[in-house]
This record gives sequence, C-alpha cells and structure tokens, in this order.
Amino acid sequence: MHLPVVCFGEIMLRLSPPDGLRLVQANTFDAAYGGSEANVAVSLAQFGLPSRYITRVPNNELGKSALSAVSRYGVETARSVWGGERLGAYYIEFGAGRRGSKVLYDRQNSGMATLEPGQINWRDALAGAAWLHWSGITPALSESAAAATLEALQVASDMGLRISCDLNYRDKLWKYGKTPAQVMPALVEHAHVLLGDATAFDLFFGIEAPQTEDLLQRVAKRFPKLTHIAMTSRAGLSASHNTYKGMLFDGAQVFESRTYELPDMLDRIGGGDAFMAGLIFGLTQMPDHPHETVEFAVAAAALKHYVRGDFNLTTEHEVRALMGGNMGGKVSR
Amino acid sequence: MHLPVVCFGEIMLRLSPPDGLRLVQANTFDAAYGGSEANVAVSLAQFGLPSRYITRVPNNELGKSALSAVSRYGVETARSVWGGERLGAYYIEFGAGRRGSKVLYDRQNSGMATLEPGQINWRDALAGAAWLHWSGITPALSESAAAATLEALQVASDMGLRISCDLNYRDKLWKYGKTPAQVMPALVEHAHVLLGDATAFDLFFGIEAPQTEDLLQRVAKRFPKLTHIAMTSRAGLSASHNTYKGMLFDGAQVFESRTYELPDMLDRIGGGDAFMAGLIFGLTQMPDHPHETVEFAVAAAALKHYVRGDFNLTTEHEVRALMGGNMGGKVSR
Amino acid sequence: MHLPVVCFGEIMLRLSPPDGLRLVQANTFDAAYGGSEANVAVSLAQFGLPSRYITRVPNNELGKSALSAVSRYGVETARSVWGGERLGAYYIEFGAGRRGSKVLYDRQNSGMATLEPGQINWRDALAGAAWLHWSGITPALSESAAAATLEALQVASDMGLRISCDLNYRDKLWKYGKTPAQVMPALVEHAHVLLGDATAFDLFFGIEAPQTEDLLQRVAKRFPKLTHIAMTSRAGLSASHNTYKGMLFDGAQVFESRTYELPDMLDRIGGGDAFMAGLIFGLTQMPDHPHETVEFAVAAAALKHYVRGDFNLTTEHEVRALMGGNMGGKVSR
Amino acid sequence: MHLPVVCFGEIMLRLSPPDGLRLVQANTFDAAYGGSEANVAVSLAQFGLPSRYITRVPNNELGKSALSAVSRYGVETARSVWGGERLGAYYIEFGAGRRGSKVLYDRQNSGMATLEPGQINWRDALAGAAWLHWSGITPALSESAAAATLEALQVASDMGLRISCDLNYRDKLWKYGKTPAQVMPALVEHAHVLLGDATAFDLFFGIEAPQTEDLLQRVAKRFPKLTHIAMTSRAGLSASHNTYKGMLFDGAQVFESRTYELPDMLDRIGGGDAFMAGLIFGLTQMPDHPHETVEFAVAAAALKHYVRGDFNLTTEHEVRALMGGNMGGKVSR
Amino acid sequence: MHLPVVCFGEIMLRLSPPDGLRLVQANTFDAAYGGSEANVAVSLAQFGLPSRYITRVPNNELGKSALSAVSRYGVETARSVWGGERLGAYYIEFGAGRRGSKVLYDRQNSGMATLEPGQINWRDALAGAAWLHWSGITPALSESAAAATLEALQVASDMGLRISCDLNYRDKLWKYGKTPAQVMPALVEHAHVLLGDATAFDLFFGIEAPQTEDLLQRVAKRFPKLTHIAMTSRAGLSASHNTYKGMLFDGAQVFESRTYELPDMLDRIGGGDAFMAGLIFGLTQMPDHPHETVEFAVAAAALKHYVRGDFNLTTEHEVRALMGGNMGGKVSR
Amino acid sequence: MHLPVVCFGEIMLRLSPPDGLRLVQANTFDAAYGGSEANVAVSLAQFGLPSRYITRVPNNELGKSALSAVSRYGVETARSVWGGERLGAYYIEFGAGRRGSKVLYDRQNSGMATLEPGQINWRDALAGAAWLHWSGITPALSESAAAATLEALQVASDMGLRISCDLNYRDKLWKYGKTPAQVMPALVEHAHVLLGDATAFDLFFGIEAPQTEDLLQRVAKRFPKLTHIAMTSRAGLSASHNTYKGMLFDGAQVFESRTYELPDMLDRIGGGDAFMAGLIFGLTQMPDHPHETVEFAVAAAALKHYVRGDFNLTTEHEVRALMGGNMGGKVSR
Repeated sequence: MHLPVVCFGEIMLRLSPPDGLRLVQANTFDAAYGGSEANVAVSLAQFGLPSRYITRVPNNELGKSALSAVSRYGVETARSVWGGERLGAYYIEFGAGRRGSKVLYDRQNSGMATLEPGQINWRDALAGAAWLHWSGITPALSESAAAATLEALQVASDMGLRISCDLNYRDKLWKYGKTPAQVMPALVEHAHVLLGDATAFDLFFGIEAPQTEDLLQRVAKRFPKLTHIAMTSRAGLSASHNTYKGMLFDGAQVFESRTYELPDMLDRIGGGDAFMAGLIFGLTQMPDHPHETVEFAVAAAALKHYVRGDFNLTTEHEVRALMGGNMGGKVSR
Repeated sequence: MHLPVVCFGEIMLRLSPPDGLRLVQANTFDAAYGGSEANVAVSLAQFGLPSRYITRVPNNELGKSALSAVSRYGVETARSVWGGERLGAYYIEFGAGRRGSKVLYDRQNSGMATLEPGQINWRDALAGAAWLHWSGITPALSESAAAATLEALQVASDMGLRISCDLNYRDKLWKYGKTPAQVMPALVEHAHVLLGDATAFDLFFGIEAPQTEDLLQRVAKRFPKLTHIAMTSRAGLSASHNTYKGMLFDGAQVFESRTYELPDMLDRIGGGDAFMAGLIFGLTQMPDHPHETVEFAVAAAALKHYVRGDFNLTTEHEVRALMGGNMGGKVSR
Repeated sequence: MHLPVVCFGEIMLRLSPPDGLRLVQANTFDAAYGGSEANVAVSLAQFGLPSRYITRVPNNELGKSALSAVSRYGVETARSVWGGERLGAYYIEFGAGRRGSKVLYDRQNSGMATLEPGQINWRDALAGAAWLHWSGITPALSESAAAATLEALQVASDMGLRISCDLNYRDKLWKYGKTPAQVMPALVEHAHVLLGDATAFDLFFGIEAPQTEDLLQRVAKRFPKLTHIAMTSRAGLSASHNTYKGMLFDGAQVFESRTYELPDMLDRIGGGDAFMAGLIFGLTQMPDHPHETVEFAVAAAALKHYVRGDFNLTTEHEVRALMGGNMGGKVSR
Repeated sequence: MHLPVVCFGEIMLRLSPPDGLRLVQANTFDAAYGGSEANVAVSLAQFGLPSRYITRVPNNELGKSALSAVSRYGVETARSVWGGERLGAYYIEFGAGRRGSKVLYDRQNSGMATLEPGQINWRDALAGAAWLHWSGITPALSESAAAATLEALQVASDMGLRISCDLNYRDKLWKYGKTPAQVMPALVEHAHVLLGDATAFDLFFGIEAPQTEDLLQRVAKRFPKLTHIAMTSRAGLSASHNTYKGMLFDGAQVFESRTYELPDMLDRIGGGDAFMAGLIFGLTQMPDHPHETVEFAVAAAALKHYVRGDFNLTTEHEVRALMGGNMGGKVSR
Repeated sequence: MHLPVVCFGEIMLRLSPPDGLRLVQANTFDAAYGGSEANVAVSLAQFGLPSRYITRVPNNELGKSALSAVSRYGVETARSVWGGERLGAYYIEFGAGRRGSKVLYDRQNSGMATLEPGQINWRDALAGAAWLHWSGITPALSESAAAATLEALQVASDMGLRISCDLNYRDKLWKYGKTPAQVMPALVEHAHVLLGDATAFDLFFGIEAPQTEDLLQRVAKRFPKLTHIAMTSRAGLSASHNTYKGMLFDGAQVFESRTYELPDMLDRIGGGDAFMAGLIFGLTQMPDHPHETVEFAVAAAALKHYVRGDFNLTTEHEVRALMGGNMGGKVSR
Repeated sequence: MHLPVVCFGEIMLRLSPPDGLRLVQANTFDAAYGGSEANVAVSLAQFGLPSRYITRVPNNELGKSALSAVSRYGVETARSVWGGERLGAYYIEFGAGRRGSKVLYDRQNSGMATLEPGQINWRDALAGAAWLHWSGITPALSESAAAATLEALQVASDMGLRISCDLNYRDKLWKYGKTPAQVMPALVEHAHVLLGDATAFDLFFGIEAPQTEDLLQRVAKRFPKLTHIAMTSRAGLSASHNTYKGMLFDGAQVFESRTYELPDMLDRIGGGDAFMAGLIFGLTQMPDHPHETVEFAVAAAALKHYVRGDFNLTTEHEVRALMGGNMGGKVSR
C-alpha cells in the first residue's frame, strides 16, 4: 500500500519540567507537541508510509507551531483546518524510580473540543487515501466532536477506506454528559482494526471474559466488520522500568509477542501509539504475517520508550534490528 | 502604614521562548507566574510593606506552583481560594530591535474567570488590612467575575479600607457581552486612587479632553471619592529601547516625573504594575510628598524593565539610588 | 497537633555540576539551598503541618535567597535572624554507577558557625510552638553554636515543647577542639525523640551493643526523657541504586519497616531528613501507631531519592500511595 | 504567481557558541541548519509562496536532519537527492559591540561540492515551477558543481522558467583553480534577476563605475536578459548595530529604499537572503510596483536581523507592519 | 618512570545531542574534544604521569580549542603541529535501554588524514620521552598518515623508547585502498605492548585460534618484540548496562581481571582508552605485578563509563578505591 | 622579551546568575574562575607572551579546577602551592540598563588570605622570569598576605626582575586592622610600573592634585623607581554602555589614548586587568612606543567588555584590528 494513511485527532502543546524536576520546582519547561493520532501519523512517516494528519487548531502562533512540528517529520498537514480559541495543552511531570509520572490535561475549548460536523471537508481530507485512523479520545472531548467523528467515519466507509480505532480510554475525559457506552459502539461499527484492553471493552461495550481469547472472540462477534483486534500489556516495576508485550487476533488465532524488559526508560508517553503505527505498518506491508506484525508493533513500542517526546522517531530498520535481537548494547560506528 | 495591602486578581502561568527565539522555534520555554495584581503585591513586599494576595486557582500542581511563586517573595497567600478548572496562561514572544513582542492569552475557564460572588469570604480576606488594590482585568473576564469584584469593593468600603484601581484596558478581553462602559463606572465609584490613560478614560467613562490637566479634572469630578489620579506615558523607539514617565494629580496639582531613557530592556512586562506599587508605597509612606511619590513610582517602573519575569524584584533602596542619579553604570563592589 | 514545629539549624547554598559532570568539567552549577533542619521543616510543610525555621544568615542577597527558598514551600522564616559574614555553601558532585558522590563543605564563618547565645530571642522564636527539632550538626560547628543550642533547649524545655534530635554525625565537622562526647550528652538530655545510628551512639555516648534491641535499650536508659528512638539502614549497591529501611523503638518494642529497593535514584541528599520529618509527622498525627509511623517515615525517605534538591517535595498523599504498594510504575492521568 | 519557486544550493549544519561565548569557551553549541538558497526558500514559504528546495546531502542522520529543518517551515524537499560523504558545516562565533563575528567554513567534500551533472533529474526537479533561484556559492564549490549549475540553468531556460541569481561572493571559496570571471558570466547569461554588489560586478564581470546608476546600466547591458538588478548596502557601526538599505534597477530607473537603523541585532546571518526572498516576492506579487518591492525586500532583511538562525521566520504581515512604521516598540497584546 | 609518555593520533570535535535526544531532534549539541590517543594522554596525566600529545590540527579557532581542551588537563601539547584544512569531527547520538548509540564520523581532510612524513620533527617530538603510544586509527586514515606513523616508530625505536599500540579496528575507516593486513604488520613490528581483540588479530595478521591463550601465544610468536598483549571483553545488556573485563598476557601467563557490572552508564566512549592508560600506568609503575596491572586497567575502564566526555577524568586514588571494593554506593563527605 | 611574566595573586570561583537574572531568581549559576592577577596572566598568554601564575589554593577539587582553568589558556601554574581551607568565591549579579551590577565577595580564609611568608619558595617561583606583577588586592586580604607580598618583592628585586603593580583599591577589603596607607607604600617602593587612579593615590599615598599631569609627577617623585605610571578612566552611561580611555606617563610626557564607546557590553569584569596586560605587552614588546602602548592597552581593555568571564581571550591580532579602526561591524568570513 502506498496510498496515505490519514490520522485524525487532537494535537496539544506538551510541557514538561526538565531533568526530573517536579512541576513546582521548574523554571523552564521542555516544549513539544503531541497527541495520540498525530503520534501515529509521525511514526508511520518514519516507517516510510505516506501519512496525512487532520486536526483543527487555532490560527495563531501555537496552532501553527503544532502543525509545523508534525510536518517537520514528513507528515502532510495541509488539509487540517483552523479554528477553536486555544490549543490544548498537557503537562507531564516525569517520575523516576518510586515516584510515578503525572499528567495534567488542559484541553478545554480547544479546536478539536469545539469541532462540529461540517467544519472539515471529509471528501477532500480523505481524497486518495487508503486508511483512516482515529481514537476514542476525540469522541470523549465533546458531543460535537463525537458527531464530527461519526461524520468522518461515514464518509470514509463510503469512500471504501480501511478504518482503525484505538479505544484509548482516559478516565479524566468523557465529562460532557454521555458515557462511552452511549457513544462509542456506533463509531466502532465502522472499524476494521481495533486496539483496546479489557477495561475499555467492558466500559465501552459491556464485554467481559476471564480469558483473553474469549474476550477477543466476543468483541469480534459484536463488531462483525473487524478483521483484527489487538491488545497490549504493560507491567510497571518502577517509573523507569516496565515490561511490555502485545497480542493480535485475526479472527482465527491469537498471536502473542515476546515480552520486552524496558529498563532505564526515557519517555513512555506514546508507547501505545507506536504500537498502533507498527500494527498499521504490518497489516499493510506484510498482511500475510500476523505474528511478525505483532512482533513488529511491540518492538516499535519498545523503542518508543527510548525516544523523548510523544513521537516515535525510529525507522523500520531500527525496529527490525531490535526484533533481530540487538538489545541496545552495541554502538553502531 | 504597616497594615497589609490586599491585591486581588488573576495569576497566570507565563511561558516565553528563551534567548529571543520565536514561538515556532522554541523547544524550551522559560516558565514563570504573573498577573497585574500579583505583580503589585510582590513589588510592595520587596519595598517592605506587608502584602496579601487574593485569587482563585485550581487545586492542582499548577495552581499550587503559582501561589508558591508569589509567597516565595514574602506575600501572604493563605486566604486565596481553590477553584476553577485550569490555571490561565499567557505566552510572551519577546521581540528585539525592529521586531515587536507578542502576547498570546490563554485564560479561558480559569479560576478567576469562573469566580462568582460568595466564593471568597471577603470579611476574612480583608481582615486587618488597610488597602485593597484591584484592576480592570478582573471585571473584563466574565460577568460573574465583575460581580465578585463589586462584592469585594462593597465589603472593603464597608470595612473602611482605602481602594486603588488600575484601569488596565485590554482589547482582547471584555468578550462576554458587556462593555467596560456598562461595568466599570459602578466599580470605580469605590476607588480612592486611580491609574489610567486617555484611551481608558474615554472607553470606560466617556471622558475626553485635549489637555491632560483638564482630563484629570473631569475624571476627578466624575468620581468624587478619588483623592489621586495617575497616568503613565511610554514611547517605544524599538522593542528594546523605550522612554517612560509618569504624572500624579492630587486634586489640586499635576506632578510630572522626569523622563527615563530605557535602553537594552530585559523585560517590559509589569512596568505599569511596578509603577502602581510605587504609587501605593509613596501614598502610604510619604503622603505629604506627591512629587517624590510620582518620581518613586516611575523610577520603580524604570527598574522593572531590567528584571526578568513579571515581578519587580527591586528594593526601596535600589529605587532611591536610581532617583538619586545612579543610572546603572557603576558596579557595586 | 496543629501548633508549629520549629526547626533550628544551618542553611547553605548548594552547588552541583549538572548532568553528572565532575566538578572540574562544570561551566554551570545547579543552585539550590538546603541543610538538614531546613529540609525537615520544608518536608513537614508539604505534609500539611505548620512549620517554622530558625537560623542565622548574613543580611545580603544570598542570605535572603536562602530564606526565600524555604518560605517558598510554606515554612515561616520571619523569626530567623541576620548575622555572620557569609552564607555557608556545599558542593555536591553527583556520582553514577561505580563512581560515588562527593560532598565538599565550605561552611566556615557562616551565620550559624558564629552564632552566640543571646543572639536569638528564643521565647519569641518558640512562641506558640509545640515541638523543637535540632540536629548534631549545629553543636559541631563551633563552641558558641553549641552553647546557643543549649540555650534553645533550655528555653524549649522550660516552655514545655517536645524536642527531637537527629544525631547527624559528620566526620569533617567537630574541628573546634571539643569532641562530640564532651558536648552532645548534655544537649541530648533534653530530647524526647532521637534519630541515630550505631556509630553515633558509640562516638557520642560510648554506648555499644551487638544487638540492635540491646543498643536501643541502653540508649533509652542513658537518656530517660526519650520516648522514641529511631534508626535507619542503607545499603549502597551503586551510586544510583540503594536499599533503605528504618526502625522505631517506643521504649517497649522495636518496629521495623519493610526494605525499599531504590533503583535509578535522582538525589539521595536529604533522605535521612525526609525520614525525620516522616517520624515527626507520625508521632504527632498517629501517636498510637508506631509501626505505621516508621513505615510512613521510611516511605517518605524512599520518595526523597526521586526529588532533586535537598527538600522532600512530596505530600502525605504520595507517601501513603507508596506505602500502599504503588511502586512508581503507573502514570497518573 | 502561485507556481513554486525552486531554490538550488547547499545546506549546512550551523554551529554557534551560545550567549556570546567564544569558540574556545563553548561547551555546547546551538545547532541549526542553513545556507543562502535554503534561506530564500524558507522565507518565501513564510510569505505564503510555494517553494521547493533542491540540494544534495548525504543519506545519514545529519543529511536527513537538514532536510527536515527546511521542510518544517513548509518547503517541499522531496526532489532533493542523496549523495556526498558528509554534510557541510559552518561555525559562527557571534561578536558583540567592538568584537566582530567570525565564520569558519567546513564544507569540503559535501554533497553539493561533489555534485556532478546528471545526478539531479532537472526536468523532474523543476516540473510545474515558475522560477529558479541559485547563487554564486554553488559554482564556487567545485568545477563539477559549476557544471551542474549550468545544466540546471539550461533546462530551466528551456522550460521557460524565470531565473534569479545572487552573486554572493565569498573570498574563502573559489579554490579549485578557476576564477569567478572564468565561470560566472556563462551562468549569469541565463538570469533575469540579479542581486550583487560593486565588488562582485568587478571581480566576476570586470565591470566598474563610480556612480551606482552607471554601474547598473553597464551590468544590464552586459547581460541583456536581465530585467532587474538589485544591490544592498550595509554599514557596520558595531557587531550589534548596523544600518541597511537596498536599491532596485528595472532597466529604466533606480529605486532606493529608506535606510533602516538596526540596533540590538540578534543574528545578521541571512540578511541578504531575506532581501532576495523579498525581491522575488515583490517581483511576482506586485510586479508593477518596483519601489514598493525594494522597500518590502529591505524591510524583510531588516526583520531578519531579529530572528535567530539562518531562516527569516517573518510573515508578509510583519514585513508590511515595519514598512508602515511599526519600529518594534509596541507589544502586540 | 617519570619520563613522559608520548601519545600520537587524531583529536576531533565531538558533538552530541543532550539529554538522550536523537540527532534530528537536537537544537543544541554538547561540544567536547577527544580521540583515542588523546584520551590515553589525558588519563595518564590524571594518574600523575607526565604525558605529551602529538597531533596535527588546523591553525584556526577549532584546532586551538582542541589542543586547549587537552592541555587543560595537564598534558603537554606544545610539540603538536599546525596543518590540514579542517578539524575532524564525530557525532555521537547516545542511546538508552533498547536503543543503541550511534557514531557518525566526519574526519575527511583533517590535519591527521593529510599528515605526511617530514611534517613532524620526531626527534624533537620524542625528546626526553620514555614511551610512545599510537593506535591503528592513524594508519587507517590515509596512506600518507600510515607512512608518517612508520616514520615515528622508526625514530622512536632508534631512540630506544618503549612502544605500545592499540589496534583499534574501525570498520568505517581503511577506505584509501589498502587493507589493514597490508599496512599494520610492518608497524606493529615496532611495538612492545599490544592491545587487541580476536577480530583485529584475524583481520590485521590472519591469526586465529579457538582458545584465548593459544591466540595470544600465536600473536606473541608473530611479533617477537612484544612483551605484553592485552585484550578486553564487553557484554552489552542494553545501551546503558554492560559488563566489562580484561586479560593480560606477559609471555608466560594470562592474567584475567574480575568482571565489572556497569549499570546506569553515563558515557562508554573511551572505555578502551581508559584501559590502555591503566595498562601503561601499571606496566611502568608496578612492573612486577601483572595481575594488579590488569585489575587496575579494567577498574580504570569501569570508572570511565561514569565520566562524561572522551576523557577519563579519574585519579589513581579513585581507581584503587574501586579495586578495593567501593562500588559507588557511598557518599564521600 | 621572551622570559616569562610571573603574576601573583588570588584566584576565585566566580558564580553568576545566567541571562540577566537576579541572585534570588537563579536556579543555576554560570561557573568560572578569575582574579585580577590571574586575568593578567591569561591575557598575556593570549598575546603570545610566556606567563606563569603563582597562587595558593586548597588541595581539593575546587582548587584544582581553578588552576586547570588558568592552565587551559596556556599559563604555567605548576609552581603554585596547595594550602588554605577553601577557595575564595565571588558572586556577580550582572545588571542591565538602569540596574547596576553587584559583586558579593566570599574570600575569607582562602589560601591567599591565610598565606604566610615562607610558604612559597620565591627563588623557585621566579626562576628564569623577567617580570613580576602583583596588585593591591593581596596585601588587602590579611597582614600575613601583605608580609608574603613583601617577601616576594624583595626576592624579585634581588633577582633583578622588573615589577609592576595595579593598586586595585577595593573598599570592602582592608578589614584586618591596617589601612592601605600603612601597608602599601613600602610595597610600591619596589615597583617600576604602576597602574592606579586618583582615589588610590590619595588613600594609599596621600597624594592629590587637581591636574592629572601634576598628580602623576608627584607619584613619580614619591616612588623614584617608577619608570611608568598609567591611569584609566571609565564613564558609566548605563550598566551595558560605558566609555573607556587610558593614560600613560613615562616620566617625561603623558600619552592619552582615544576614548572608546562601549555599547552592548557583555562583561566588564576584568577590563582593568586587560589594560594592565596590554601595558606589560607594550612596555616589553615595543618599549620605544609609549603612545602605541597605551592605545594597545586600552583597545585590549575595550575588547574585554565583549568576552564573557574574567579572562580577556583576545589575541594581539584582534587588538590591533580594533586599533586599526575595525569597530566590530564586519563579519570575518
């Protein structure tokens, strides 16, 4: 596939105290831009797939800086639209050892939170594309953003695009009066590929099962368009040491990746988005190799923990080197 | 007077690209906290006057950091209240030479914008205080914030405090459906000391006059409680070179300060607040010397241009040294 | 107890090369302020207890900056006094892995080293307080500082305050001609709560015992006013990986905490002070729960290793989360 | 004109000691990317004109980072080619006051220095474009680079593009055995727009004249395809204070801009490139207004002195504000 | 021995993105200077041995800064010579965890790469010295550099100096048309002490053996002047966690060091050079203790992993503390 | 003259808040080393004269770092001695515009303050040297330091060295019970070259005169060994804009330099030391050109204002370029 993957969602300014300082101590913040779907778009571009990013940001210096940060890494952003009164922001206080990391969202009244159907010309936004990726964050922002998501999915379905969704459950969102269970099923109906976890399957769809395989079977049954369902699993030994693995169900079989030990992590934000990008890469570039696909996705996610910022700035070559057993101990020179 | 001066208003996170970079270039932001009335409170504390700061900030790390930043410089903040969903923020891109500075406000839904009457216990907030200072920014945020300001002024009047107001007209505020002319006169009725400029006198009160003295006379007539009215005047030769002077009218006479040449400015934000603090200092500490008072206020403002951040971290001793002719060229060693 | 805890001791400028550089490589130093007793005061304020800090610093920019750094975190500093010719300083070259950290003291002729009885008005300094905390560092500075400490303890005893002491043995101090054994016993006589270790018990009091419990019994016997004696134990696997645990003896029983594994430490300075603050918190806030108290103190100390600077900027809530098993691996969002 | 302007030349890594330090003092370098023709391309994109950048860089992290830096600001870079063993670099030690700035080039064996005819597919590189811009730096690098430049110009002429050239004389280049006089005339034959100065006209073409107008007449006569010739003039009062003006000759008349006073300059590198971009903007967007064009170009150049880095990150709106008399002294808020 | 050790080789500017950033993300680079043989010279000076550094660098600010960086740590550099068109450079992108480090060389046309016999006056360069150290990097740069190395070795042999060689095989060098096997044997003929590994022994001399002891015997046989042969062995568990050990063969017996666990490494560049310096130190200062020598060398190398930059800024005292079991866990205060 | 100039005095750690911050705001300090006589030694080495620095610093990391900082720039430091309990320090808060700079000394109990006669072997320290430079700072530190200075001067006189003295009056020193007038004349007796100002001539020697020429005549008469007396004159228009000129009296005539305008100064500390080094350079390298000498000295001092740190890192070539009229406005490329 060399038709673009379109990613749709919110991008925020990301502010973090440097050097492991706490927020109250900081006199400078490291400044970057990120957001789940933008992260997927950037990662795909690093893998060599054409990607396009659709969002809505205010027409001021910060909105422009956010798009500039994404386009810098080779993503097409020209079809995003201006609007909203402010750029959303989030603060990440990185933990260390026994002190966990903390995220503070500040995304009210952003361009995406105030997005309404009709503001994006979806025929144009999706023109020439093969795939649309969205996540459960956008419908969690506001009722109108959920409606705009539905609009996008209907046009995409109509145009014959393949659709992927990362459920991305965030407890602090969904504050506008509807529950995920009221909103998400109608949207997920359109998806062909789904990334989720047991909590989200339960909260969004009321689906539970003690065994992973059963759970996946039930989700697959509930959404018949789905061809693939993926899950990831993380154990947090400390703020700087985790383990990570992934699973992929292709309707017939569950493929489980190896488990990566992740010591001395630099930045775990965007790990799931890196997995999602790896998944799209695998499903489009090696469609007959589901096991290799989930190994690729989880290796991509593993590497993300060692790149600062939201974006997974790693290449296909680097992901394959890790899959091949290069655990980071060699200097390439 | 050694009873505290209470300053009431909004405090924001202030983010600025370092080293003269533009917003789109910045990978780190210098982070500080400030706001017109907080700036006055901090400056008064540096002059040795007890000061107290009343605001409403969210009960999260950023809200706490903002209060911590003020209390660090000796201002009492314990009577401020928690509330609101976010801390307001502003971005300042410092200009240089022929490129002017730019400010981007992001203060929606802040604790002060959503402040309502009854949320602050004003009897307690003003207990033991001699003076209340507020500015035209608070009533510009929302109708409820304007109502809460009125509540504060009524209690303060009732308790016999002296009241000062900086009109602080900001074109980008006043967006909630009322004009300054509908809101401000009833609030300014309570003030004894007023800082403004010709634009604000016209927009807020419909008062115009070609001559400064006439203008001041008319404002004084319109608000009979006023004992003093001050104005400042700035000329911008470049982004880093201004001139600055001030005037004080005591109902009888206009006292005009010398004009300061301000080359190589570090940070002009908060210059007017530094003047305001100097004015309060002079009116309380040397009430019989209006000319010295305006000279003190303008020298304080001049020094502010050479301190980074919103706060004027200069002492009475330093202000008097500048008044005495020490133009900065000597190393104190 | 909601009466303030008063902490009395020296505060220093702390200079450290950034990013793990050695002193000889550094072109910038990170600058902070700290000292054992100031660290206890700040930690107590973060736990929500009112605290007050008494010290003697020179009346110059550095002395003011030191007090400002403490008051920033909510500690009352107004009863400290000006004096001495310089602010003490210390240099900390942080190690990593197999290279240990190094501390270089530069505290001669400081305000506290030249403190003499009569310079602090102890009736005023302790007014309204419930507890006085001091450490073995102050009497180690000079004969007059030891005498001033005795003066403080006599007034505090007289006023009925509870008194705690951290023995804090430092080999590089005690250079003025007296040994700890000549000075400390008369001071410790006044204490109700003692933090120490086997080395200090031997050097200061000549008390040794092969078994911890015996040792604690003998110390308790020697100082009949003591109600609680605590000890901590640290193992240094590398410069960035330690283990840590604590013990508390209430005269009847020894309560021992779990042992924390501390990988990827950011800053181990102030770990013992964090324990001390946790101890005071527990003894005053949950006096009937000595086991919970020592668990709280050691969890507080564990978290300190993940906060940069001398001060333990962690809340009661965060300490309890660690006690409850949150080992840092979760992002709070 | 809304067809792209193609800019062709070398991009380098630019390393500069921070904060006015000298090279020998620096422990960190500010890192950016730039080069005369890339600077023109970026500036055009900020003015809203589509621009495309053609260069040859090595296929390694640095080559990719250089292209990423250009594409970040909206320039199309996809038709550039990989090659050469290294990315060229230059070091700029910024002066101040009486200490002048110093540039150290390190551009041997770069992708552009080793460029040969045939390595770039010029039909493809110029497809759909309206304008080609090049400068005298490329033919100064090597004989093969000069030959490749000629190849580009022939294709561009053949395809009917308008061609501009900035003579950009650099004494330290032209080391491969040919003089500018042997190489440049045959290349400049193809140009329609020329930017130069008296030194370059003499050294490159042997054209001298005591009067500017005469000089321009003679150059115009020598190269009959030229429709416009521009010159700039700078006076260096100190390392941080210059004056700057420009002239434009349209074959009939010389239009001279006002002279800008440039105090407190941040970064004068790229001033001439900013002028060149302004010239292209004016000649294409307001072809009937040569005086406004030269005023626009010189105002753009003036603003460049207040943007860090090689790139002139200023918009048409900002340039017009300066032309309208906003000398930088106002804060936009 | 208190006669100087002369080290001969190339010094480069070393540029590295800060804080674990990738090259494409960096806006600043940490700047240092280093190179295998300069690293040995600096390390010897820290151990208290007089050392002298011979290289060829361009006579510009960067060349001077490189020599200044070496002389700063007590190495005599006055006999180095000016020449070459540029200072070589290398870029090191530090990895972390599962992302390995990457080195990008940029050393073409440097002073050493263009060095020719006759440019250095070797009689003068080696005057009064006891030992000459060189490495396989210099003959890998160019044919003339190899010839200049031979010239140095002949003079040194003639003057009776002891000679050591670190084979230092770098795959990316040796690009000028000759293989190591064609060049190195004639140079190594002159050495008394050799540091290498199995790959280099095979590629340079065609010597292989399954057993380390056999391998060392064969190398010793091939080069009868050799009195000592050393090897090191590193295992890379991750980018920040390695193990390290060393072996020394004195013609009779193989002495093997303990294996160091190296968690939380700061900078592994220069580890082998630190070992080499430790070896020279041991062979000259405790010639009868080969086992202690290899333990000293490997402990020196272990400490290097915890010093930023190429240079091993650790003293004999610190190396001996690690040998004595101080694994870094103690704060020296 | 190519025999070394020996400079004798104290070196301190110099700490300064970055970016124009005030001391109370700083979380990092820029760290450098400097002191009047060390500054002279470094400047001479940059001019190509061999120089040697004699001081007394503690044998710890800071003392070593201070010497390393001087030797880095080519000064011989091996004859300095270890001793004293601490390295002196000073804090410099750089002003800007109307806010003047402040220096805070912290030099008690330093190696030089506790220096006593006999601790330095002056025969060895001065061996092979032609010139000894000292300043009025050393005898201002303590009675024993004054005595050690006398010892140095007697040996130097005895060995036939030429001696220069910079009176360097500092009001905050001279606190040990003697006045300059009691101490300095006996020391200045030994000098051949003197740098001073009217204040120092009066306070140290009781010599006053309304006319500069008279004043110089009287000083010359009072100290018959003097061959040259120099004075400098600075006007401080603001913290970042001064003017500077110098005068030199050779016993017959007063030579006065041009006056330099010094806008946009980076760092004025060490300006007088740069003048002193220029004076020694001129008197030894062009002894028959007193006017050129004073022009050289004042141009060197002018350039110092544009180099960060105490040291004047400028070459003879750069000084001569400024003398030749290059006022900094040209980029050298």
